[in-house]
This record gives sequence, C-alpha cells and structure tokens, in this order.
Amino acid sequence: MIIVLRPGAKTTEKKHIIKKMKEMGFQTMVSEGLERTIIGLIGEEDLLRTLPIEAMPGVERVMQVLKPYKLVSREFKPADTVVKAGNVRIGGKKIVVAAGPCAVEDKDSLLHIGKEVKKAGAVILRGGAFKPRSSPYAFQGLGEEGLKYLQYVREKTGLLVVSEVMDTRDVALVEDYVDIIQIGARNMQNFNLLKEVGLAKKPILLKRGLMATVKEFLMSAEYILSQGNFNVILCERGIRTFEDSTRNTLDVSAIPVIKSLSHLPVIVDPSHAAGKWEYVSALSKAAVAAGADGLIVEVHHKPEDAMSDGEQSLLPKTFSAMMKELKPIAVAIKRTI
Amino acid sequence: MIIVLRPGAKTTEKKHIIKKMKEMGFQTMVSEGLERTIIGLIGEEDLLRTLPIEAMPGVERVMQVLKPYKLVSREFKPADTVVKAGNVRIGGKKIVVAAGPCAVEDKDSLLHIGKEVKKAGAVILRGGAFKPRSSPYAFQGLGEEGLKYLQYVREKTGLLVVSEVMDTRDVALVEDYVDIIQIGARNMQNFNLLKEVGLAKKPILLKRGLMATVKEFLMSAEYILSQGNFNVILCERGIRTFEDSTRNTLDVSAIPVIKSLSHLPVIVDPSHAAGKWEYVSALSKAAVAAGADGLIVEVHHKPEDAMSDGEQSLLPKTFSAMMKELKPIAVAIKRTI
Amino acid sequence: MIIVLRPGAKTTEKKHIIKKMKEMGFQTMVSEGLERTIIGLIGEEDLLRTLPIEAMPGVERVMQVLKPYKLVSREFKPADTVVKAGNVRIGGKKIVVAAGPCAVEDKDSLLHIGKEVKKAGAVILRGGAFKPRSSPYAFQGLGEEGLKYLQYVREKTGLLVVSEVMDTRDVALVEDYVDIIQIGARNMQNFNLLKEVGLAKKPILLKRGLMATVKEFLMSAEYILSQGNFNVILCERGIRTFEDSTRNTLDVSAIPVIKSLSHLPVIVDPSHAAGKWEYVSALSKAAVAAGADGLIVEVHHKPEDAMSDGEQSLLPKTFSAMMKELKPIAVAIKRTI
Amino acid sequence: MIIVLRPGAKTTEKKHIIKKMKEMGFQTMVSEGLERTIIGLIGEEDLLRTLPIEAMPGVERVMQVLKPYKLVSREFKPADTVVKAGNVRIGGKKIVVAAGPCAVEDKDSLLHIGKEVKKAGAVILRGGAFKPRSSPYAFQGLGEEGLKYLQYVREKTGLLVVSEVMDTRDVALVEDYVDIIQIGARNMQNFNLLKEVGLAKKPILLKRGLMATVKEFLMSAEYILSQGNFNVILCERGIRTFEDSTRNTLDVSAIPVIKSLSHLPVIVDPSHAAGKWEYVSALSKAAVAAGADGLIVEVHHKPEDAMSDGEQSLLPKTFSAMMKELKPIAVAIKRTI
Repeated sequence: MIIVLRPGAKTTEKKHIIKKMKEMGFQTMVSEGLERTIIGLIGEEDLLRTLPIEAMPGVERVMQVLKPYKLVSREFKPADTVVKAGNVRIGGKKIVVAAGPCAVEDKDSLLHIGKEVKKAGAVILRGGAFKPRSSPYAFQGLGEEGLKYLQYVREKTGLLVVSEVMDTRDVALVEDYVDIIQIGARNMQNFNLLKEVGLAKKPILLKRGLMATVKEFLMSAEYILSQGNFNVILCERGIRTFEDSTRNTLDVSAIPVIKSLSHLPVIVDPSHAAGKWEYVSALSKAAVAAGADGLIVEVHHKPEDAMSDGEQSLLPKTFSAMMKELKPIAVAIKRTI
Repeated sequence: MIIVLRPGAKTTEKKHIIKKMKEMGFQTMVSEGLERTIIGLIGEEDLLRTLPIEAMPGVERVMQVLKPYKLVSREFKPADTVVKAGNVRIGGKKIVVAAGPCAVEDKDSLLHIGKEVKKAGAVILRGGAFKPRSSPYAFQGLGEEGLKYLQYVREKTGLLVVSEVMDTRDVALVEDYVDIIQIGARNMQNFNLLKEVGLAKKPILLKRGLMATVKEFLMSAEYILSQGNFNVILCERGIRTFEDSTRNTLDVSAIPVIKSLSHLPVIVDPSHAAGKWEYVSALSKAAVAAGADGLIVEVHHKPEDAMSDGEQSLLPKTFSAMMKELKPIAVAIKRTI
Repeated sequence: MIIVLRPGAKTTEKKHIIKKMKEMGFQTMVSEGLERTIIGLIGEEDLLRTLPIEAMPGVERVMQVLKPYKLVSREFKPADTVVKAGNVRIGGKKIVVAAGPCAVEDKDSLLHIGKEVKKAGAVILRGGAFKPRSSPYAFQGLGEEGLKYLQYVREKTGLLVVSEVMDTRDVALVEDYVDIIQIGARNMQNFNLLKEVGLAKKPILLKRGLMATVKEFLMSAEYILSQGNFNVILCERGIRTFEDSTRNTLDVSAIPVIKSLSHLPVIVDPSHAAGKWEYVSALSKAAVAAGADGLIVEVHHKPEDAMSDGEQSLLPKTFSAMMKELKPIAVAIKRTI
Repeated sequence: MIIVLRPGAKTTEKKHIIKKMKEMGFQTMVSEGLERTIIGLIGEEDLLRTLPIEAMPGVERVMQVLKPYKLVSREFKPADTVVKAGNVRIGGKKIVVAAGPCAVEDKDSLLHIGKEVKKAGAVILRGGAFKPRSSPYAFQGLGEEGLKYLQYVREKTGLLVVSEVMDTRDVALVEDYVDIIQIGARNMQNFNLLKEVGLAKKPILLKRGLMATVKEFLMSAEYILSQGNFNVILCERGIRTFEDSTRNTLDVSAIPVIKSLSHLPVIVDPSHAAGKWEYVSALSKAAVAAGADGLIVEVHHKPEDAMSDGEQSLLPKTFSAMMKELKPIAVAIKRTI
C-alpha cells in the first residue's frame, strides 16, 4: 500500500503517520518527490485495508497495490477450478448449458420444457421457485411447491436442477431439492446469505449484481469460499448502463477479465442481459467465443403466457437451432458443447 | 397501457392480441397510424403488467401509461406523510438530523459521540451493529452487543437510535433495541427483508440502492407499505456513476422528484455519497436547500481510528460548525433544523 | 405519438391540446382511461418531435411511437448496405480487418507494421495523423506528414488506409489522402463535422461515442446520410460504465441491435474497448461470433515505445495468431475473414 | 508515478524497466514487498505519462501520483480566479445569473425575454444561435442572424450575452458578437475547438460533457488555458447515468470537488440537468447552497411554442419567483445574488 501526502503536509503529520504504521508492524519507505512525498508500506495489506488511513491528517490519497481478495484469485490457485455437480463438470473442456423457464409455473409445462431443452443439449434445468420481483404485486414464485416440480422433472429427465434462494431461512430447504444453489443478482451483496450458502454442501451459482464491478463480484465469491465452499460458478448477466435498447449491457469482457484474475468457472446469462429473445443467440455465440464455460438460457414453450420474463425467453425450437449453431463455434475454439 | 405493433404485423396477429386482451377483461382501442398500428388498453394496468405482452407475435413495444406503485404515490395520498418516532417527527417543518459513527465500536466512545452530536443539534443517533462489508475479512460489527450500547446511549442522552438490519432472522432482535430500523442500500431489493420489516411496528429508514432508479426505490418502499407498515423514510445516499472523484454521486434531483411522486419523507446521507468528509458540508447544504426532510451524517471523534468509513466521518467540532451553517439556510426556505 | 395527461388535467387544458394538434394537421384520438386520459396523434411524427408538447399545461408525458431516424433504418432500406472502398467490400460475407498503430509515428515503422498486418490478413491500415488526446501536452499527431506516410505505405503494400479527421477545416485534406475517413468517438456529436463529411465522396467510419446510446449513434449516422453520403460504416468501440477493469465496456449487444435497426455495416474496435492487449483476442472472437462485419485493431511492433495507447496494442505475432484463431470462428458462422 | 510489477516478474524485466527509466532521466526507488515489487519514479511525471509503461514486459499496473493538469489546478494558483466580462465579475462574492431561451428564435421575443430576466435579476442573456441537435431534421439555430438579435437585445437592455460556438470556422464570428463564448457539452472534447477558443480574447464558458469525469473536464479547460486564455468559467450541467426521471443527473458534488482542485469559477445549468422545469428551482437552490458562483437558466415566455427544449424552460414569472427565493439562501452563505 502506498500513502500519498498532500502538497503542504507538515513534518509532524508525516512523522505521526510513520509512527502509527510502525506500531502496526509495517515497514515504511519514504520517497520525497518533486511535488509530493509518498510512503510505501510493506507488510500485511489486508490489515492495512481495515484502517481509514485517508482520515489521517496530511494524507491526500491511499493507493492499494494488492488485490482485496485471496481465495478466489489465480495467484492463490493457478489452475482452473472445475466444479462438479452430479455427473456434470463446469469449467472443463465441455461448455455446459442450463436452460428452462424464468419461473416454475406448473408441473406439466416444466416437464415439457425440461424434455425439450434436454433434447437440444442442455444438461441443467433452470427454474425459479422463489422469484425476486421489483413489484410486491407481481408473481412471487411457487416456493417449495416449485422446488418439488423441479425435483420431479429432474427424476423424469436426468437433468440437474438449479434454483435461486433469496432468504437465509430457506437455504437448507432449497439445498435439499436442487443440485446447484443460485444467488441472484439482487442478492450479490446480501452478505448474510452469502455466508449461509458458504456453509452449504452444494455448488453455488453466483450472479453478478447489475451494478457490481468485477472486483466486487469476486469479493462476494470470496465470502462464499471463506466459509469453506469452494464450488462457486460465476455468472455474468449484464450490467446496468445508460444504454436502453437492451435490458442490461452484457459485459462480455468480464469473461477474459475474470479468467485472468480468478480460477473459478464463468458462465453467461444472455437472456437477462438482452431482455429480448431476438438477441439471445448472438450474445450466446459471443459468450462462447470469448471463453465462457457455460450458458444459462431462458426457454419457455409459450412465452406470451409465461408468468415472468416471457419477452426474453426462447421457444424450444429456437433454442434447439441456437444449440446447433453453437456447436461449430465451440469446435472452432477447441471445446465441445 | 399501449401496444405498438411491428411495421409488417399481420392481421391475424393483431386479431390474436385483441382477442386475448378482451378475454382478460380489457377494453381495446385500435388506432391505425401512417407507419404503425397501436392498440390502447383500458382496464387494470397492474394486471397487464404481469403479462409478457412483448412476447406476443406482431408486437414491437409496450408502453406503460400508469406508475407501477400505488400506496407510496402522491395520487394515493396527496398530503405529506409525517413519520413519528418517539418525540421526533420526520417530514414536518423541522429538518431532522441523525448523526453518529458508521459502526458502533465501544460503549464509551459511542456515548462521547452521542453527547457531542446532541449538543450540536442532532436528535437521532446512528450507528451500525450489523455491518455490510464488501470484504469478508473486514470488521462485521458487534451484533447484539452493539445494539445494547446504542440503547445505553439512548437512555443517557435522550437521542433516538437508528440501526441497520441485514437478515430476516434478526428483524425482531433489532426492532427490540432501536427506534427506527434501517435497510441498507445493498439490501434495497432484498425483498424478503422488505416484507419482514413491513410487518414491524417501528418506522423504517430505507436507503436507496446505489444502482436503483427512483422508480425502483419507490417500488421497494411499496413492498414495505404493502405489508401494513406506512412509516417509511426514504434516504438518498448517492448512486453509482462513472465519476470517481466522489465515492458515489449524490442525486440531489431525487429530492424534488420523489417529493412530486410520493408523500413519504426524504432524507439525505451526504457522508456515503461523498466518501470524503471535506465535501459533506457542501452536500448537506445542497440537500437542505433542495428540500430534504433530514440528514444522516457520519460523525466520529477519532476518524483515523474508526473501524469503518473513517474517511467520510466529520469530527464533532466540524459537525457542530456545519449545523450552525445549516440553520440560516433552513430559515431561508422557511423551515427549522 | 401519444400524449398522456396528468391525473387532474382540466377540460380546458385537454381542449387546448387537441385544438393545437388539429391546427398542426394531426388527427387526434382521445381515450379516457380509468386513471388517465391519453391522446393519440396520427400524422407526421417528425414534425411533432420538434414541438415541446410536454411544456403544454395538463401534459404529464409524451411517448414516441416511431423511431427518430429514417435513412439509416432497416425500414427505409431492408437489404444490408455493402460499403465499397477500393477493392474492399464492408458488410458482405467476408469479415474485413483493419489494423495498425494508434498514431502514425514514422515512415519506416509504419511500413514495417503495414507489411506485418497485411501478411496476417488485414486489408486496411489504420493510423492516426490527427490525434484527439485528453491532455494538451500529449503527442497530438504528425498531421499532414502522417497522412503522407499512410499514403506511402498504401502504395508499397496495397492496403487501403483509414485515418481520423477532427476539424471541419481538415476534411478536404484528409479526404485527399485516405480511402476511408474516420470520425472518432469524441466527435460523434460534432454535428458540423458530420455534415462536412456527409458531403465527402469517400466512405465514413463513424465511431460510437463513449456516452452515446445506439439511438444517438444512428442519429449521428443519419446526419451523414442526410447530406448525401450513404457509405457509412458504424464502429462499436466500448461505452463508459462504472466498470474499471477495462478501459471501456464493449457493448457486444450493439451488434445485433444495430443489425436489427439499420442496414449499415457494423465493425468493432476491441483495442479501445479493452484498453489492455491481453483481452483483445477474446473480444475480437466475441465480435465476430456476434455478427460484426469487421474489426479495427491496434498493432504495434514495439508497444512499449508507442507514442499513444501502447498498452492496448498487439504485437504483429500476437495479431497474426489471433487472425488464425478467428478463421474457424468465421467459418462456423458461414463467413470468411 | 509508481510501477507495480506482476507477481512472477523476471529479474531481466525488472532491470529492463529500471534501465529505461534511468535513460529517460528518472530516479528510481525499488521496494520489494511480500507479494509484489514496486518501483517508484522521481522526475517529471508529465513526461512519464506520455509513455505506455503498462506495455513493458513484467508490468502489472501503473499508478499516478500527480494530477495530469497544471494551469487549472489550485496548486498552480491558490487564489480563486474571478473572470471579468464587461462589468460582470464571475467567481466573486456575487452569484451571477444568466438566463434566456434555449435557442434564439426572433428579435421581439428575445427582447421580451431579455427585459423580463433582467428585471428578475439576471445579468447575462443566454440564447443559442448555433444549436447542436441530435437530429439533422431539428431546428439548427438562426446562425449569424441569431447573433445579431443577441447584440440588439444587449444594446437595449445592458445585459451581457453568451452564446455557443460549434465550429472552429465560426469562432471569430461568434467572438465578434458575444461577451462570453460558450463551448457546449457535446464539444467538451472537441480539442481543435478548445485550442481555437484558447486563442480568443473573450472569456469562455465551458460546459461539462455529459459523460466526462471532473478530471477530464479540467483537462479540457487546461487545453484552453494552455493557449493563453485564462478566463474560463466551468459549468456543471448534469451527467448521464442510469436514472431516467430527470434528463441528466446534476452532479452537485462537482461544485465542492472542482473548488478544491481548481481556482476557476463554477456555475450550474439546472435546466439541462433536470430536463423538466418543475425541478429547476430546487436544483438552483441546491447549487447556490453548495457554493456555485452562478447559474445559467432557460427562460421562455411561451415554452410550449419554443423551438428547442421548452419542457425545461421557466416562465418569466416562475424565474422571478425563484430569484426571490434564492436571495435569502445567498445571504445565508454570506454571498449576494
């Protein structure tokens, strides 16, 4: 960590800072520049981060040299993490596709969709039983009933299932029913929930908050790993920007950025990013070409009747066509799908 | 609600939409323009909002005429809501100031700060017992111990206390100790938590999420009101933008915007918006002049030793000087502070 | 266009609006909803757009049904535009690659880079002679001397050249030397410059402003077309967001969005979007897979000595390796590169 | 400037960097931390900034210690700059108000508006003769004719006039007619235009770009000062964010931020920030309370007939009422208006 002093910082201020840092056990290196004095600190940067050094008299700015996360970083674990869920491996050569409706609505249509997406090549069924909705008057999901339907389709089709948990009190319940527990974008910084799923035995699919930096995204993953659960799958799903022709802006760069910073697998949700089904195929291709380890796609057989996000759902036949188009792209980058 | 059809929409598509809308109980008005056909719908827009009409074949776009919230709107309740907490009224002529440390650290310093801010004119003590921190390794707050210290200072000084709850499981506990329950920015769309505090008997201070539009902010308040708790205080605390010279960008316009849309009181947190104590005074003046009903300010007697957000904390004497400068501004707009 | 009245709008206000609209030659359709009155207008929406209808007493909101651009729209010209520059066609089956240094520095290194990028498969040489730099003290480009070097390398290699013009006074000069005239991101809304190049005979490469929506981007292209120059190539180069791990955020969705709204070809600049050479390859693959008609990539043989943007420049050998990797992706989507 | 090396940087890489820096005349200080090596550089940071050090092998990141601007900085000139235009001083104790229509439309209405705003306390008349419009089909301004009307009203009322220039070719013309030359938000990084007005003898009103950081804003001002024109007035006018209830988001914090970084006066345009006249008064009060040196406000006697931006224009009587309300706020902060 580096402390930059204000132009007119007093000698007493400088001495006070150095004394304080030494008391904390840090080695200091002072460099008197032409216009500024800077103090370099050597020691445990994590400890330093907890101190409001910028509040010290004479300090203009503090610059951090190291990254604020540890367990999720490539430096901590250079090799790619491959998350295992049932017989599925996420983060390996094969690109993994999850598909299904935004919300679980009823048993029959879920089974119908499940069969269709499996036929097209999906290996995981997605479907919300607990739904975060911005309006209290919108459909909030079927709750445990929905989880039961997911389990039912899981047994009938052999697909794994992923579903979201929104409340610390529901973690044990959801874990009982699903193969992968999802933390939604709006809960990416619900730190109590992160800690709770950090104690779960199932893998976690962590969605990026729509206004979270990659750094904050990795910090939220660090919460989960810090509790002992290393099976975390990161999911880029679009960030909020000024552009309004899509629901969110898919940050496709986050794929190579995260790959360089972290060992965790990264998948992409093109449906929530686009908000319109017409663009889902192009975004899926972009994600695969950029190195994503998987996709999570909304598919519904009657989007106009869907109880949530029908605008962005693909029809099974459109999904199937897209899967066919993705195959040669996967091959082109020496992977499979 | 208005449905705009695509340029080449087929007659069968148009008929299908009209039929479907009539089945739902809506009256339709078709207008054939030079380049587009539009269908106006008359009926309960809330119901329409739950349907993915954009997924219907032939539809280009859906435009909503009404606002998606009800109980929080000025139209529902034209007169300003004045929230009562103990002997304090928030939303009346007097501008209410809450002040205190970011996190509760120990009993003595809390009492010291409490006495100082009271002397300067604050009527509410702020202080976090449960702290949302982006790093799992940062100080997470004292928990119930911190709540006890708040209660202690409350008894000694007569200040009311406000503190944050982060977990649905802690709502009853926090409600026992505080006068006003705070929902932090990161939990603004933690819908289960919103529902839970909607059942509490104490007033709620709801902070705007750093990625939330005013509309979404009001929708989150609607969650609380929809459960029966109408005592909600809205708090603007800065939004995330590309500008990095401040921690967040204070959206001062949100004050008149919310005042025009809603009857709920609006206060401002200049400390989290600025992220640097030097700017807190200017932002506080701006907030008061723009019509805010209150302020919530971080004050710490030793910011450089604070366990959280020391950079943005005012010293008691700086806070006191600011309060003196705010008085004539309050008078200038025919209020008191 | 649709006018939504305020809840308590007076009858006199409503009548005034209708009268005014009829005077302007519009047909009006009034629909009295449960909570709002809306007035639909039929007629030339372009004319309506020039009126500040929201300033009329009683009006709450105005909603536009049609798009504000015409010549650039798919509805005006359903077939893809293929821009011809020399023997190169942009917007056809073959994906076109432009490459070269950020700024033209000297004749020999430009020739060296030109030969290298040509060998790797580029057909256009990029290089700035006039450089927009945020600091007045940074290298501002060689001006006409730089244009001469570009022409020299053009003759030696057979590559076409593209270079930026920043000033209306320089348009004729730049047009003399280059095959494609570039308008940089910072000048996307320099409307006088747009008009000036709209009168030029050479094709225009228009870069998206880092703060521009797709709609505004298309409006700026409309400026050029409205002057008679229909040979416009649109270039997505990243937008400004809160994310800071990349220089800008590549809006890969803009490719399918623009393709659906406009007939103009779209290329991508992965170098300025990423700001770091490490991510250029992944972004290029994403762009090609998502349907881009071309790429414009920074290549420099000695990036650490480059006079501008060396951080984001590929070495010729890295560029060559990337081109090899792009080939099978182009084939996978039934194109060539 | 500080260079942070990658974790596994080789000794040869480190030596290469140090050698290169020494050749450039810099003194280097190497600090071997637990996880990273950092190299501090002492010397002319301006020179360093022009080098792409991040492109050097082994470098992870470069951190700048100093600010990239000089002439505009408080360190260069600690005392506030007071810009003189005619008999008006901007940046002194008196808060200066400019008001008038968005666009100059005709002589009589301009005179009418001029008289009204003068009566209410404005000392400068604003009005666009050259209008930057996102659509080529929108009213583009009256050009020189509009400038003549401004001059006419100037003579009749004694108001000073400010008007925008958009093209390097028009600078001399506009300078002939106006007292203050305006550079609009869309041209904030039109560097050729900045250089041209840097050679003018009249003061420059520089508007912040809607997606410009404060740092970039100051860099653009630096362009003007670097050409010899030190009479620059900075104007905050709202930045682009995700919030859409206002046209832009007024960054009120920019006032104290700029005041701390620069000696130049800062004024605020509440009309373009809000985009709706209802919010202009609240934003004006906030700006004055936060320390702005002036306001530039849109006023039109018939907003619904205005040829540009009528939605955000105040009626003369509303403007007059606002001016009355601003007076006690100015007094409260020990200034006048």
